[in-house]
Amino acid sequence: MSGLTIWTYDWVPGGKGSPRGFVRDLRLRWACEEAGLAYRVCSIPFDDRGPDHLARQPFGQVPFLEDDGIQIFESGACLLHLARKSEALMPREAHGEAETLQWVIAALNSMEMVTVPWWFIGLSKPETNPLDGWFRSRLQHLEAVLEGREWLAAGRFTVADLLMADVLRVSKVRAVCPPVLEAYVARITSRPAFERAREAQLAHFAAGDAARAAR
Amino acid sequence: MSGLTIWTYDWVPGGKGSPRGFVRDLRLRWACEEAGLAYRVCSIPFDDRGPDHLARQPFGQVPFLEDDGIQIFESGACLLHLARKSEALMPREAHGEAETLQWVIAALNSMEMVTVPWWFIGLSKPETNPLDGWFRSRLQHLEAVLEGREWLAAGRFTVADLLMADVLRVSKVRAVCPPVLEAYVARITSRPAFERAREAQLAHFAAGDAARAAR
Repeated sequence: MSGLTIWTYDWVPGGKGSPRGFVRDLRLRWACEEAGLAYRVCSIPFDDRGPDHLARQPFGQVPFLEDDGIQIFESGACLLHLARKSEALMPREAHGEAETLQWVIAALNSMEMVTVPWWFIGLSKPETNPLDGWFRSRLQHLEAVLEGREWLAAGRFTVADLLMADVLRVSKVRAVCPPVLEAYVARITSRPAFERAREAQLAHFAAGDAARAAR
Repeated sequence: MSGLTIWTYDWVPGGKGSPRGFVRDLRLRWACEEAGLAYRVCSIPFDDRGPDHLARQPFGQVPFLEDDGIQIFESGACLLHLARKSEALMPREAHGEAETLQWVIAALNSMEMVTVPWWFIGLSKPETNPLDGWFRSRLQHLEAVLEGREWLAAGRFTVADLLMADVLRVSKVRAVCPPVLEAYVARITSRPAFERAREAQLAHFAAGDAARAAR
């Protein structure tokens, strides 16, 4: 078996507004499922994030990845690390690789840099969200890109689509996606590898419920 | 000469609050200066950002990079592309490379994802900034990381330090950096390659002033 281990929490809260189905270990599970890379999932306690955790993820978050002695945090970095292992995630040819890389970074630093703070501010239900104009402008720019094509990079599915769709599928964001983006998110998340990853994450946290109930 | 071309605007406004010295072509110039990679700088008109520009940078921004027929946008992606060319920017050995990659992504997606929206909201001088708590928490987490060491990755200067220092040196952000981070920013930006890159950017936009005055 491969030496890949994806680390996530043992449990996160369920119910309304739950992060289940959205915790970012899902990005790594999804990438491994797409690439046919064997992996196991290990847990750190959600309730007790101490110095050991900070030593491996300095911002106190998940996921992080172990790969035969290499440890790496940041879901975007883990995805690029995995993409180097499989052409299913990123072309090996220089143009396609550069295009995939640029769209991975665009998902993280042009889109998610706006969508996550916009979503976060929205949680407190302010009358106006100061990031609203910027947020909608970014969606429109991306809408224009995808009006002309099915995939972000290299004319085929890549890890850039996986990440961009994961950024956009957050409920509040997806609810305001213009039509081409909505169709894109629906298309990318209809891939069987996504569904397997999502089911596996939901089962993982359900097992966490059972373990807590047994305590 | 190398086939590297860094594209930026021909001009940006000067004066109070000017982006001069901070436009992100500086990140690419700095990386090339650190690595000893030859490059030239080409301009697109700041005043007229049309379809040609959007075809190369879909969010209507700069910089983008050309490398012997490969075009790539997103400063973070350009830096990772350049880092593959020079061990001065990123170790070739697997552990050091993974560590550099994770800190490049952390600069983009854990730090800048908070610092840029925080800075942007601050421009309109609200009584309270809804991102203030999150912003300060991220600074404190990074402060704790750098309390124990001089560099982010691999025990040496890498492109991760270049990028993180560039994220933190934005005036409003730097003004509230705790002491270890402030010393880090001062140390990384005292590198001669940074100063060469900054001077070159300032000269580039000063030439833009002259060209506009001559019209």
